[in-house]
Amino acid sequence: MSNLLTQTNFFVPIQEYLDLVEYKMRTQSDGHHSDLGAALDHLLSSGGKRVRPAVALLTGNMLGAVPDRLVTLGAAIELLHTATLVHDDLIDGALLRRGIATLNAQWSPAATVLTGDFVFAQAAKLAAETDSIPVMRLFAETLAIIVNGELTQMFTSRGVASREDYYKRIYAKTASMFELATAASAMLSPVNDKVVMKMRRFGYQIGMAFQIVDDVLDFTGEQTTMGKPVASDLRQGLITLPALYYLELHPDDQEMASLLDGHFYSDERMDRLVNAIRKSGAIEMSIEEARQYIEFSLETLDNQPDTLEKQALVDLARYIVYREF
Amino acid sequence: MSNLLTQTNFFVPIQEYLDLVEYKMRTQSDGHHSDLGAALDHLLSSGGKRVRPAVALLTGNMLGAVPDRLVTLGAAIELLHTATLVHDDLIDGALLRRGIATLNAQWSPAATVLTGDFVFAQAAKLAAETDSIPVMRLFAETLAIIVNGELTQMFTSRGVASREDYYKRIYAKTASMFELATAASAMLSPVNDKVVMKMRRFGYQIGMAFQIVDDVLDFTGEQTTMGKPVASDLRQGLITLPALYYLELHPDDQEMASLLDGHFYSDERMDRLVNAIRKSGAIEMSIEEARQYIEFSLETLDNQPDTLEKQALVDLARYIVYREF
Repeated sequence: MSNLLTQTNFFVPIQEYLDLVEYKMRTQSDGHHSDLGAALDHLLSSGGKRVRPAVALLTGNMLGAVPDRLVTLGAAIELLHTATLVHDDLIDGALLRRGIATLNAQWSPAATVLTGDFVFAQAAKLAAETDSIPVMRLFAETLAIIVNGELTQMFTSRGVASREDYYKRIYAKTASMFELATAASAMLSPVNDKVVMKMRRFGYQIGMAFQIVDDVLDFTGEQTTMGKPVASDLRQGLITLPALYYLELHPDDQEMASLLDGHFYSDERMDRLVNAIRKSGAIEMSIEEARQYIEFSLETLDNQPDTLEKQALVDLARYIVYREF
Repeated sequence: MSNLLTQTNFFVPIQEYLDLVEYKMRTQSDGHHSDLGAALDHLLSSGGKRVRPAVALLTGNMLGAVPDRLVTLGAAIELLHTATLVHDDLIDGALLRRGIATLNAQWSPAATVLTGDFVFAQAAKLAAETDSIPVMRLFAETLAIIVNGELTQMFTSRGVASREDYYKRIYAKTASMFELATAASAMLSPVNDKVVMKMRRFGYQIGMAFQIVDDVLDFTGEQTTMGKPVASDLRQGLITLPALYYLELHPDDQEMASLLDGHFYSDERMDRLVNAIRKSGAIEMSIEEARQYIEFSLETLDNQPDTLEKQALVDLARYIVYREF
């Protein structure tokens, strides 16, 4: 199902800028306490694919933004993403992320909270360096949306499971940051408000698809490649799209109902439920939905001239939903 | 030593704007999860005197800024201050602030971290709404300075005690935010860069004085009025200016040396040391130093025309060091 070319070639036209984004992020601790530098290096070395800066760079490239400002924006967005991960891992008590020790696995909660705050501060500083008030505003709004989403999830009791809540949650968690990447790049480009709105919509759609695919991979991946058990979300009581479709296909399923009521299952019982979900068609329905989002997103680009820059963005969008499941 | 008039009359010309600042802060949770609104109300009800917004409003009033933007700035600064307090209290495990339960006394650490993040986000949003790139940049830089200061304090082992370190610490902790209040107000005013620099210096000086006085009050206050034991900083191993002056007056004092080496004392032994510091003249030397900062700050205002607005700012500066000790 995957295609090696479309998986990687969209990085080629922006590799040079991605390197500059990396450099800009890593030098943000210069002049501050040396332990902060070590922490930032550690955080940035945990192997993120830099999808968000790539989206920002490709969008801005397509629309004719000045590369310097795009690099600054890309670094600001990836640092914002990094900061939210630091606090997330602390809250979840996660000890590993992408197979590498989290900050809180090594540091005190206090140092972890403050390091997250520091990364927020640097992200905000870089956002201000784009010299665009609309970008600054959108940046702050996005942070508020992300945090409000996490708080809502925390305050919402286990057992509430509707697709509407799911879409709200993945918007706050993921799609809002992709919206920021595309809308802010457009704001830094010589285009009108209508194009900004369209690109924001594009970011929304690929962001929704990205998170749905992530949630599908949680069900389909093997423990060895994921570094966490299959269906780790469900095991923690977090209901994602495949489980929601399963519930719609089998509304009277006692196992799901009991799980939603807050019961925790043994590993074996959970394995049986996960297998039932995997065999139900719910995975395929979820993938299909993600692909729909991507098809809609590509329509958003219809009015853009057919340039190499546009093609790279199309490739990236397709890659999100045609990678290995 | 105090004078009732100078203690309060500087609030009169800006009371109306301070009310708007209050309203702006409290409505930041509108449209978000209702528990967030309750948390924000609780945080803002803990009785802060809103000194930082008052400084911003008085400075901007004096320099002719548009009141609307000053109100937005004032709310942004007080929310930034509030957010840092939320994370501070969490880190210190403090259960009370100004006699009112802290957020972490009632909520989980996770909810407390996220609520702090939410308040940061709202502060950044308001800062962006001032529509000034220099204000945004200074805002982000100030957050970085504050957090870097806290991390440095955390990483610095107990026992390091020099006035140089102390000044750095109180700059990061307090004076940087006063600098932000005065410099940002000037940036929103029809004045040149030289005036912005001068007002930044003014903010620095009153901020340093403010923190020194706070540290003096920790030694001179009574437990009943303070809600915490006398010399609570020293009891926690935090060496402030009175203790530093005491150390300079009595470099061979075995009690201080042993404390700096990381020994914890019984309450009685600590009471004796605190009494020795109180009788040594170190308190008076500290107050004198704070007053010096204020005198310097007033010189910074020399070139400003003698208006009622300027007089209010002078009154506020004097109030900082002539309140009851």
